[in-house]
Amino acid sequence: MSVVVGIDFGTLSGRAVVVRAADGEELGAAVHPYTHGVIEDALPASGEPLPPQWALQDPEDWLDVLRVAVPAAVEAAGVAPEAVTGIATDFTASTPLPVLRDGTPLCRVPGLERRPHAYPKLWKHHAAQRQADRITALAAERGEPWLARYGGRISSEWAFAKALQVLDEDPDAYDRCERWIEAADWIVWQLAGVETRNVCTAGYKAIHQDGRHPSPDYLRALDERFTDFVATRLDAPLWPLGARAGSLTAQAAAWTGLREGIAVAVGNVDAHATAPAARVIEPGQMLAVMGTSTCHITLAETLGEVPGMCGVVAGGVVPGLYGYEAGQTGVGDIFAWLVDHAVPPRYHDEARERGLDLHEHLSALAARQEVGRHGLLALDWNNGNRSVLVDHELSGLVVGLTLATRAEDLYRALVEATAFGTRKIVAAFADAGLVVDDFVVSGGLVKNPFVLQVYADVLRMPLHVGGSDQGPALGAAMHAAVAAGLHPDIRAASAAMGRLERDAHVPDPVAADAYDVLYERYERLHDHFGRGGDDVMHALRELRPREVARG
Amino acid sequence: MSVVVGIDFGTLSGRAVVVRAADGEELGAAVHPYTHGVIEDALPASGEPLPPQWALQDPEDWLDVLRVAVPAAVEAAGVAPEAVTGIATDFTASTPLPVLRDGTPLCRVPGLERRPHAYPKLWKHHAAQRQADRITALAAERGEPWLARYGGRISSEWAFAKALQVLDEDPDAYDRCERWIEAADWIVWQLAGVETRNVCTAGYKAIHQDGRHPSPDYLRALDERFTDFVATRLDAPLWPLGARAGSLTAQAAAWTGLREGIAVAVGNVDAHATAPAARVIEPGQMLAVMGTSTCHITLAETLGEVPGMCGVVAGGVVPGLYGYEAGQTGVGDIFAWLVDHAVPPRYHDEARERGLDLHEHLSALAARQEVGRHGLLALDWNNGNRSVLVDHELSGLVVGLTLATRAEDLYRALVEATAFGTRKIVAAFADAGLVVDDFVVSGGLVKNPFVLQVYADVLRMPLHVGGSDQGPALGAAMHAAVAAGLHPDIRAASAAMGRLERDAHVPDPVAADAYDVLYERYERLHDHFGRGGDDVMHALRELRPREVARG
Repeated sequence: MSVVVGIDFGTLSGRAVVVRAADGEELGAAVHPYTHGVIEDALPASGEPLPPQWALQDPEDWLDVLRVAVPAAVEAAGVAPEAVTGIATDFTASTPLPVLRDGTPLCRVPGLERRPHAYPKLWKHHAAQRQADRITALAAERGEPWLARYGGRISSEWAFAKALQVLDEDPDAYDRCERWIEAADWIVWQLAGVETRNVCTAGYKAIHQDGRHPSPDYLRALDERFTDFVATRLDAPLWPLGARAGSLTAQAAAWTGLREGIAVAVGNVDAHATAPAARVIEPGQMLAVMGTSTCHITLAETLGEVPGMCGVVAGGVVPGLYGYEAGQTGVGDIFAWLVDHAVPPRYHDEARERGLDLHEHLSALAARQEVGRHGLLALDWNNGNRSVLVDHELSGLVVGLTLATRAEDLYRALVEATAFGTRKIVAAFADAGLVVDDFVVSGGLVKNPFVLQVYADVLRMPLHVGGSDQGPALGAAMHAAVAAGLHPDIRAASAAMGRLERDAHVPDPVAADAYDVLYERYERLHDHFGRGGDDVMHALRELRPREVARG
Repeated sequence: MSVVVGIDFGTLSGRAVVVRAADGEELGAAVHPYTHGVIEDALPASGEPLPPQWALQDPEDWLDVLRVAVPAAVEAAGVAPEAVTGIATDFTASTPLPVLRDGTPLCRVPGLERRPHAYPKLWKHHAAQRQADRITALAAERGEPWLARYGGRISSEWAFAKALQVLDEDPDAYDRCERWIEAADWIVWQLAGVETRNVCTAGYKAIHQDGRHPSPDYLRALDERFTDFVATRLDAPLWPLGARAGSLTAQAAAWTGLREGIAVAVGNVDAHATAPAARVIEPGQMLAVMGTSTCHITLAETLGEVPGMCGVVAGGVVPGLYGYEAGQTGVGDIFAWLVDHAVPPRYHDEARERGLDLHEHLSALAARQEVGRHGLLALDWNNGNRSVLVDHELSGLVVGLTLATRAEDLYRALVEATAFGTRKIVAAFADAGLVVDDFVVSGGLVKNPFVLQVYADVLRMPLHVGGSDQGPALGAAMHAAVAAGLHPDIRAASAAMGRLERDAHVPDPVAADAYDVLYERYERLHDHFGRGGDDVMHALRELRPREVARG
């Protein structure tokens, strides 16, 4: 029996899962929380307070996952460590870090432990917005062809904005940075002992398009000192997903308890790794990884430019297909906001009596309503918008409030708003000639049947539930199986090891008709507040303290 | 020492207050709750369920106030009943009832006790909307000159809509109705033994303009059977406010324990009676009676037509001046909605610990914020709009929501929204040449200094706090003093007996500047959603169950 290990490096912890390559059976798993979690308030090494919107991590915490979670998962699986023949990872992204030429994180270089810019910048580090704005504006001004591949906007979360922030704010740290690398690739370096770069993070997070990163000319126009950033710190051959980066080093074997020399797959991103785990592998499929936010992955044989998409990357999800990414910045986060901040005590008491959590209780109440009976319509921009409009300064709106409005009404309206937001994304893809005909959902929200039924009704498509409770770790394990040669390619691995419950929720035609009417109303609000009919959201944003928001 | 009695007939109870005529000192008071309260669900005499939006009362409950509250107030005052030389009343309006020629309520006629249409229809009876719509549409079609005196819309709350509903739904009850009279006038009939009609209810509630009610031609066009409604059931000489309707009958003296023959003033309406109590008696003054909803009373020497005003009546508040009425359908009601339905347990616990009620706690938190820091803007139409737009099907809106929005932010935004709504009304009057230069507030909300400060800042005017805790009853007592000849007119009575704290809240110039910017934003939302830019509120209203709303 061949067994592989997948490791999902999340925001707060790493999760290792041991999987049978033949059928994807999950034999054992273990989670290890990062000792330093997300470093937001102060740098542990110095106690120095960090500015607003910073979010760092400590790379030692990631290595602890190799040392603790992997052996624990193998033990939980009840298999001999020798049975493991491949290992693969997925990571949050973009989470880049400055390192020396040998891979040593700058923050581990003696004398630099107290330098905030020497640390990895977690995906949710949002302090490089000014740099992102410069990058986008200059690309638009120069007509850089790659800009449209990112929906017209380069995010503050991505590698270039974060590197430029280091240059702006700590030029010495920038000078001492010899390589600028995604944690997704850095962790593979630690496992296999060689620097590799994967096509997925390079494409989605580091503006790699048509065989190259942005040109030296463009970089010079950003900042003279930035001219050679790509050439010296970033550029490298890119490896396709599922490729074998190398073999497990003696050091990594000692950490993990696995055999030296087994296959190590190249890096990958969490949401993208989930696609094959949910059997999303063919053109026309869309995967929605629904959690606090939602990430949409679509596959197609053709290259298209979709307004507001996060990115399109050749082979970015599955070799041989264009992988498109889109997203909604607030989904489960918005429902949680309501539950935490706008639900009166009565509902808390009722939920307790019934042994439900508040989401379950409100969902049960909301599920009883006919479409539209609450008389509400909302825009799902409470955490900004990065789909179609790509404007983080937009905000949420609710219309139709009366003295009879109750918490379950608002809950339902917010769920519907996020479903309308998803429909808007699907429509934007269709308008660009990329028709989605198979909709798969995964992620934490799939455990809420009310939410999924609303989505099925709003989208007027059956919802298939894919993936596993282990989330992206199963997808990573599939890539390990491919890298180890246990399956010929990711399609075969997905067929053998993936999970998909088809038609888990099918649309109700009456509800779908009613939602067509409301969606048309949603679109009008969307365009009025999102496309300049009324720029009140920006005006209100200007009045808010800067440190509070920015999605 | 001359003493007078004022009686305020409210929605749920009647309140009698004994007042010294020389200086308005309140010597004693007593409240008597109506045994049947508001009859909304079922008719007590039959148990028959009432349709949605009905609201009836039992006239016997009103007489109980004379029998119970008046003697109790006199006793509490510690004065001899013989010292009382005048009595006056104010009433909710429009609260009309069908009676026989001798004043007997139709619901007291044997055999009619079980007929819902034989009972008084309380102001908040909203089941005559279809009739109101017909009345308005026909008046517009015929170009009736009186329509503009009511802001272009006749309310379902008023006397004609309610009478027409009786005709439509119970023609036999309509036939047996010999007089159709406001409770404000009916109660005076019970006290003085003579039918009188006061200029205030006739003008504001029964379309009396330029010396006449609507013409027989107009009435015939509504319904052939309605042709003689005014001539037979409504028409009568109108008496100015403060006039002596007659003398207390032996019967009423027996009920109240007062002396037979003392002066009884003509009827009045609660909000209008409050004006002189708050020393609002001169042109250019506006009184805002702020409670669950807000009623605005303004005085002017000229006749103007203000969009959306509820009505303008010559001598309707003070003899010799035009009295204008405007209103906001939801004010304290909207704050109470938030407190009851959208505030999480944490705030309830904190308020309890600090010994505050939730309004006080949220107000204290909200008061600390600079203008605009919450990043929110709201429309105050959660209970419809009857100012400027006059559209009960409009609904509330909140924009600017983020994951950082908290209950005190929403509380402040809703308070501000109602203040913007008031500013809109003041501006509409100014646009019609009726400049408000003195703003007086009264009513339940004046006990909240945070609310008043927001209003002062938004209006950029000092707020004067007028009236007394006894509310309109003090105003009624002033009219009793005038009717009894203790003061020559209501101006003199107001000067001697009224209450006004000038400049209780003065605007902060910095806050006022910030609110100017937000008000301009409010106006844009107001016009977009209220004037057809986006009719989504109506579309959403159509989807809601009819019985829930309708303001």
